[in-house]
Amino acid sequence: MRAIQRLNKGAGEPKGAVDRLFRLVEADLQHVNALILERMRSDVPLIPELAGHIINSGGKRLRPMLTLAAAQICGYQGLGHIRLATAVEFIHTATLLHDDVVDESDLRRGKAAAHVIWGNAPSVLVGDFLFSRSFQLMVETGSLRVLNILSNASAIIAEGEVMQLSAKGNIGTVEDTYLKIIAAKTAALFAAAAEAGAVIAQADELREMAMKSYGNNLGIAFQLVDDALDYSGREAMMGKAVGDDFREGKLTLPVILALARANAEEAEFWRRTMVQHTQTDADLTHAIHLIEKHQALGDTLARARGYADQACAALNVFPDSPMRRALNELAEFCVSRAY
Amino acid sequence: MRAIQRLNKGAGEPKGAVDRLFRLVEADLQHVNALILERMRSDVPLIPELAGHIINSGGKRLRPMLTLAAAQICGYQGLGHIRLATAVEFIHTATLLHDDVVDESDLRRGKAAAHVIWGNAPSVLVGDFLFSRSFQLMVETGSLRVLNILSNASAIIAEGEVMQLSAKGNIGTVEDTYLKIIAAKTAALFAAAAEAGAVIAQADELREMAMKSYGNNLGIAFQLVDDALDYSGREAMMGKAVGDDFREGKLTLPVILALARANAEEAEFWRRTMVQHTQTDADLTHAIHLIEKHQALGDTLARARGYADQACAALNVFPDSPMRRALNELAEFCVSRAY
Repeated sequence: MRAIQRLNKGAGEPKGAVDRLFRLVEADLQHVNALILERMRSDVPLIPELAGHIINSGGKRLRPMLTLAAAQICGYQGLGHIRLATAVEFIHTATLLHDDVVDESDLRRGKAAAHVIWGNAPSVLVGDFLFSRSFQLMVETGSLRVLNILSNASAIIAEGEVMQLSAKGNIGTVEDTYLKIIAAKTAALFAAAAEAGAVIAQADELREMAMKSYGNNLGIAFQLVDDALDYSGREAMMGKAVGDDFREGKLTLPVILALARANAEEAEFWRRTMVQHTQTDADLTHAIHLIEKHQALGDTLARARGYADQACAALNVFPDSPMRRALNELAEFCVSRAY
Repeated sequence: MRAIQRLNKGAGEPKGAVDRLFRLVEADLQHVNALILERMRSDVPLIPELAGHIINSGGKRLRPMLTLAAAQICGYQGLGHIRLATAVEFIHTATLLHDDVVDESDLRRGKAAAHVIWGNAPSVLVGDFLFSRSFQLMVETGSLRVLNILSNASAIIAEGEVMQLSAKGNIGTVEDTYLKIIAAKTAALFAAAAEAGAVIAQADELREMAMKSYGNNLGIAFQLVDDALDYSGREAMMGKAVGDDFREGKLTLPVILALARANAEEAEFWRRTMVQHTQTDADLTHAIHLIEKHQALGDTLARARGYADQACAALNVFPDSPMRRALNELAEFCVSRAY
């Protein structure tokens, strides 16, 4: 609850946008949090120590909430969704630990990243541990279909991360490639988290596909907004370091759009900062200026809104219910947090 | 075949020690190699490029051979063991990629390690990709028990690696802790590889446990010999860098034994080189001298022989057969390669 309140406050969006979803899954989420604590235990003290650092660092538990919500909207009565949601959070946490090593980011959710405190080696290995734990939890659900969905998603996430790495500093990255990257590295887990919740509830194919589509579109909207926030002052309030993507030479949509609309001098600026990777302190400010000048932030957010709308549309196969309304609000929140 | 010939040649053990096992599983192993190539494919070119570098670098395919052999000795007639053996090799390869990042080793199987060529980031991510692929393959076997065995093993491997990391430079590491570490980081996958082969063959519990015990004991013997070779001139022939463990401050059994038998001056030498971690070029030679002086290498290998004997004893639940003899020879080879 605290994490969500903090986020709500930080993003300054209309109060209650995620609270409704949170309240609907709150009881289940408490079980998930208890299971997270139980399963990150190990006789090797460094494991719960490092895992606890990232797991308790105020994450929103958005992905496990999706699993719980999907199971609930599909009328699930069992307990398997608790394990499943925990598995989803463990996969997410494992990728965060590995990402921070890969990106050499010093901050994660406003705290020092694990690899800064303990070094790269334990971050890689504890990530592997959590990843293994997630598969143990899935095995316990007894559902091969769930294992299928989440092992596929894991492979796609890794592919997306490598794709992003290969595209780094590549000024020729186009919107299409960028969308492929974020669909793989972010939306695949959102989609799998939601789909798996429907699968464990033995929903019919139509509802399964609806939840998968909701998760996928929500994930793309979420990442678009995240990438927009990296060039916006607001993100400083959200516990992220400002300008990370810029400094790392990650070609995200705000830059891709600004570059497509750049004059010769501006194109040279992007080439120097993103390809040659020689940056001065003033460059981030200038980058933000160019992105604003060319409406690149507004257009990125407009695209995010489009995906959020598609997410909501996917839910139309379900009759109106408090949960459907809550999921619609979540999609709305994902975009509105940028304003 | 080339990999095994190279190993046989390198280690200089009696010719044919592994050839018999190899011939018995050769047809299956060709299918495994084909499936490895097929499943490491990806639209992201860096993935097969980096994965191919390590997968084609002359590994012995020992672990997948164990799976194939276990399935065969338990009378398996299906095709699931091919997928299973491929999954086992992918888990192994993923841990190698991550280990090299963790250990900062520059050499792997006599070639430049992947992270030296491509950097840490892709090594971590391609490891994650192969790990995910291995679970996809297991899902395809349709066996939840196999998934259970190998997800448990993966968690234990990660725990073992973190344990090893925590023990680094800790001069108080005792033989018991060391055995726990190698049981987790190495023997767990040998045991799981063999057990899973029996499980897919629907062997009775007695045979399942026999194969698990064979794999576990073989794995411990294998790692003991590996750690002995790190202080022996022979290893230079095996494509490993000499003295890696010493330089990294890894307290392996040869050092633990030499330290337990050290006089005050020798203890100070180990403290300086392994804890303070200040080493000169001459120190490795002196370390080898102390290890030889105290019979620590001979005693390490004697323990390895004990585990190899236990591995062979476990096979007694099976009637005599060419495969049982081949597995006995493999255990013998694991120890004899040190001489």
